[in-house]
Amino acid sequence: MGIRPVRITVVGAGRCDKATASIAERVGAEIARRGGVLICGGLGGVMEASARGAMAQGGLTVGILPGTSASDSNPGIIIPIPTGMGEARNVVNVRAGDAVIGVGGGDGTASEIALALKMGIPVVAISPPYSTEDVVLAESPEEAVARAFELLGAPTR
Amino acid sequence: MGIRPVRITVVGAGRCDKATASIAERVGAEIARRGGVLICGGLGGVMEASARGAMAQGGLTVGILPGTSASDSNPGIIIPIPTGMGEARNVVNVRAGDAVIGVGGGDGTASEIALALKMGIPVVAISPPYSTEDVVLAESPEEAVARAFELLGAPTR
Amino acid sequence: MGIRPVRITVVGAGRCDKATASIAERVGAEIARRGGVLICGGLGGVMEASARGAMAQGGLTVGILPGTSASDSNPGIIIPIPTGMGEARNVVNVRAGDAVIGVGGGDGTASEIALALKMGIPVVAISPPYSTEDVVLAESPEEAVARAFELLGAPTR
Amino acid sequence: MGIRPVRITVVGAGRCDKATASIAERVGAEIARRGGVLICGGLGGVMEASARGAMAQGGLTVGILPGTSASDSNPGIIIPIPTGMGEARNVVNVRAGDAVIGVGGGDGTASEIALALKMGIPVVAISPPYSTEDVVLAESPEEAVARAFELLGAPTR
Repeated sequence: MGIRPVRITVVGAGRCDKATASIAERVGAEIARRGGVLICGGLGGVMEASARGAMAQGGLTVGILPGTSASDSNPGIIIPIPTGMGEARNVVNVRAGDAVIGVGGGDGTASEIALALKMGIPVVAISPPYSTEDVVLAESPEEAVARAFELLGAPTR
Repeated sequence: MGIRPVRITVVGAGRCDKATASIAERVGAEIARRGGVLICGGLGGVMEASARGAMAQGGLTVGILPGTSASDSNPGIIIPIPTGMGEARNVVNVRAGDAVIGVGGGDGTASEIALALKMGIPVVAISPPYSTEDVVLAESPEEAVARAFELLGAPTR
Repeated sequence: MGIRPVRITVVGAGRCDKATASIAERVGAEIARRGGVLICGGLGGVMEASARGAMAQGGLTVGILPGTSASDSNPGIIIPIPTGMGEARNVVNVRAGDAVIGVGGGDGTASEIALALKMGIPVVAISPPYSTEDVVLAESPEEAVARAFELLGAPTR
Repeated sequence: MGIRPVRITVVGAGRCDKATASIAERVGAEIARRGGVLICGGLGGVMEASARGAMAQGGLTVGILPGTSASDSNPGIIIPIPTGMGEARNVVNVRAGDAVIGVGGGDGTASEIALALKMGIPVVAISPPYSTEDVVLAESPEEAVARAFELLGAPTR
């Protein structure tokens, strides 16, 4: 992985229940604890919870936003990247990660997981809306992040 | 629909077996017979077969290409739109249609169907790799096109 | 050029005076008279005038729109391509043409002309806001279109 | 500016002479010294020199890459964002900055400066290939960065 930190893109719904948010927050926290950079779509729900979790652990967070304004970012985003490209920002969001972790989600998340698979980017997911034999399923946030780092050849700990 | 022709985006795998190609060709032909414009990703497999079917009926065909060269288009494309945007062209491809018809497919098609649903664009599909209650399933090419036109409020015939 | 029609992208400001609109309309008309497809950004000003000119001559017109709705198109657009990508649609707009013709314009047009040059796409322009030795300057609409077709190796008439 | 660091996008040619590289390196260094995040296209020339300068000062650097591989990044990029979108990545690159600083450059840089102006993003430039009254011209790297921060309302020092 060289000197660059591992980048993990977390995808999930822009609105979610508390249980899902809690999972996403733990995913973000674990990414940061392992020294990874969290990338997400920068908005609410799973994106916000995962960024909050990473930031609380001192991690770096990047939000690839659909709109034109950095101020659309959730409070956990340190580096907002407003694209003004709408849904097309999902392609950048997915491509930006060394791996993708999905947390629940609906059509948007299904689209991103399928896109990652099409691009050959490793996908780990908890309760995914779309899955194939190439998706690594995880039961817990910590397991999901551990599996993602393993897939990237990063040392386990 | 005004004076503008209905635009139907056909999505499916870039490589496919003969049976799937035959279905795609009939989808394209039926779109053209009904006066619709066929939009697709411009490459092989389902994209090529559907464009061939439409062209053979005198229909207009548009190919939204991932690469930078119009010459990447399959022979059925009359108006190539090279984007140079790679997979991000899928977003344009899906958005360009008044409706999306899926013919078989794998991860790429799943991504496009899910994206269309996220965007609120009507989806009709034959053997889709991803589906929800919002996807209208069809058994035959002609039924798929008929359902797509019905969803758009175009007169049946 | 094979059996596919020549595609010419016309770029210029979204709002313009009558004199500029008249020039743009004649550019569009001449493209259509020569059998070319007119591509533009689909909105007002030079885009609208050029599309109107082409449509009046029975030409085909494609609008690469920044927004998500085909109904944003000007009345001269037959095939709207809503991208939802905002300014990034300019890249598709420019890339879609075999050549680009600029009619007046400001920063947006300068950006598109410079982008076309960067991509190696031939540029002909009337009163361009940005120019280099690679831009072919034209005095009249008809000359601009003639030069564009010449650059593409299409037979003059 | 809140708690988020200021983001400055540096644009310029992918190949440049030593004098221009030296200027770009000093621009990057000054951005980092002021606590800003440097964003650039991630490749060579001005992009590489500015990232090297920022990294040497302990600054954070983001590279918005045209290709699909993070390994295309120059050595000064800490957070690569491979987009796979080709030239369309320029739109993201420009939009990502609170301000844009241009260092020399040709058609590509002209396109990005014009695009930033179209978007209403402040532009400071040294020897720009395209300029209007809205471009703030600077003589030295340190002045360019100072002016950019002033335009953003950040405290001078």
